[in-house]
Amino acid sequence: MVYGALDIGGTKIAGALVDGAGRLLARSQRDTPAQGSAAQLMAQVTAVLDDLAARPEWTALSCLGIGSAGPVDTAAGTVSPVNIPAWRSFPLVDRVREHPRMPAEIRPVLVGDAVAMAAAEQWTGAARAVDNALCMVVSTGVGGGLILNGALHAGRSGNAGHIGHITVDQHGPLCPCGARGCVERFASGTAIAAHALESGWTPPPGVPPTAAAVADAARTGDPRAQAAFDRAGRALAAAIAATAALVELDFVVVGGGVAQAGETLFGPIRRHLADYAALDFTRDVPVVPAGLALDAGLIGAAAAGAASAGPSRAGGSTVGDSAVRS
Amino acid sequence: MVYGALDIGGTKIAGALVDGAGRLLARSQRDTPAQGSAAQLMAQVTAVLDDLAARPEWTALSCLGIGSAGPVDTAAGTVSPVNIPAWRSFPLVDRVREHPRMPAEIRPVLVGDAVAMAAAEQWTGAARAVDNALCMVVSTGVGGGLILNGALHAGRSGNAGHIGHITVDQHGPLCPCGARGCVERFASGTAIAAHALESGWTPPPGVPPTAAAVADAARTGDPRAQAAFDRAGRALAAAIAATAALVELDFVVVGGGVAQAGETLFGPIRRHLADYAALDFTRDVPVVPAGLALDAGLIGAAAAGAASAGPSRAGGSTVGDSAVRS
Repeated sequence: MVYGALDIGGTKIAGALVDGAGRLLARSQRDTPAQGSAAQLMAQVTAVLDDLAARPEWTALSCLGIGSAGPVDTAAGTVSPVNIPAWRSFPLVDRVREHPRMPAEIRPVLVGDAVAMAAAEQWTGAARAVDNALCMVVSTGVGGGLILNGALHAGRSGNAGHIGHITVDQHGPLCPCGARGCVERFASGTAIAAHALESGWTPPPGVPPTAAAVADAARTGDPRAQAAFDRAGRALAAAIAATAALVELDFVVVGGGVAQAGETLFGPIRRHLADYAALDFTRDVPVVPAGLALDAGLIGAAAAGAASAGPSRAGGSTVGDSAVRS
Repeated sequence: MVYGALDIGGTKIAGALVDGAGRLLARSQRDTPAQGSAAQLMAQVTAVLDDLAARPEWTALSCLGIGSAGPVDTAAGTVSPVNIPAWRSFPLVDRVREHPRMPAEIRPVLVGDAVAMAAAEQWTGAARAVDNALCMVVSTGVGGGLILNGALHAGRSGNAGHIGHITVDQHGPLCPCGARGCVERFASGTAIAAHALESGWTPPPGVPPTAAAVADAARTGDPRAQAAFDRAGRALAAAIAATAALVELDFVVVGGGVAQAGETLFGPIRRHLADYAALDFTRDVPVVPAGLALDAGLIGAAAAGAASAGPSRAGGSTVGDSAVRS
């Protein structure tokens, strides 16, 4: 039993063959020609699939999951990644199915990249055996995915868990998405760095003003850097509390580049969560770092594909026990 | 096939026997001695059950659902209604099972009252045949329940959908729940009336300063009254948009006393929703008035009980097709 996976991002297009325990058997990667044409982009996907299809494990392929930068539309099988302008409602699922080496019985399953990350954390990461989890990616943007009742909750269009664009400050700053006071405006790496700079922090000579540099400054006691992480932690806490009130959570996982700041980020999240998660059933939800890093997108895409293929295909694995509900 | 239902509220304790189409076959009601002892309260529940058990339809009882003012703990089978102080972690499910006329095979199912309302709206109300719906009650407080993937999503403790206590204004006013800027602080009837009074509105002589009186004033063009409803509509819209981003919604139902204001409330909700629900997959979700009124709590409790009893009991009805996932 081999699960296929594709991970489509703004900088790389990756693919893998994954075994029933979530281990990578084969991996291939190409750069994303983000400003290229739709055909140039698809040629990279094809090249990755060519690599995988050349592997002996390909003959045991039982399913294929695709995680993509969003927005995606899983019902239509299309993707419109914000940072890949040439793909707007691009029929990625159909085009992948048309690959000459694709077995006819394989129905690729598309999910958003943060939803894939949640599937990965549930399969082999920090949310193993958790029935109700929010898995977040705090990076250039803020995204998330939900596990509800033991299964991935992808939503009708595959975009559920979109916690970066929920409003925590209804009179707050306008977000590029069009709404106001979205979590991402406070908690993304970009927002953290911008806020620190605005309050007078400057990075050491030669160091770019990134969230990682702000985290370094916060650790050495710079109050402006600490304030920027506190502001991010507050917004994340309000959003986590809202999610817990809406669906009931057992567990929250936070990954992504900004989460590498460790306690500099997790401390403020937990401190503010004590204020915002005030209802009995929302209180004291654990917030922990992601268990997976580099290949979470691929492992999650494989998990989503396997879950959707159903127990008869996925065997007795954890993945096979859950279905993608959408 | 007869479904039993209990609806426990701060002013009344009601019970019913409901048929497979959601029609009330029998109904009984007692006042809630809200300041009474735990035993006095339970005596009223027993009296309601006595009435129902005296009906010939009782012999066909196949399940029993209990909707209660929250918080509830469905896993423990206990209730702690805010407005019924003598009941704190009160083992209502066990006590109901101990009723002398209760068939041994009946396992009562407990849900929060707003979750029950959502079940009712899905069964015979405005959310029929909808797979992903948020059903809200805007009244003295603000509550809600979720239908996800065609099934009631009650949450592990039966409190999911708690939209009244999600933060839409992270620096906003403290809420009695302990958090800040909760929807309820802007959108409850109490909040609407308080805001109108604070901005200088006064009700006509002899009319109490309720949200209904504010709605009357708003309809005749009073800008302070309109502003109070606009403020409520904004908070509700931000919360609806957040819910849509987190779980993907096909439909939103709004009931409760304040929703009787009609377009005075729905107009601002829809107007602000256009701003806050800016992502493709959250845009243009219909927001409609509840289809059920007085007995929604009983019908919903019956629906939750029937769904949980499973298809073999609930037959081919809509209710039987869905499971309560918790």
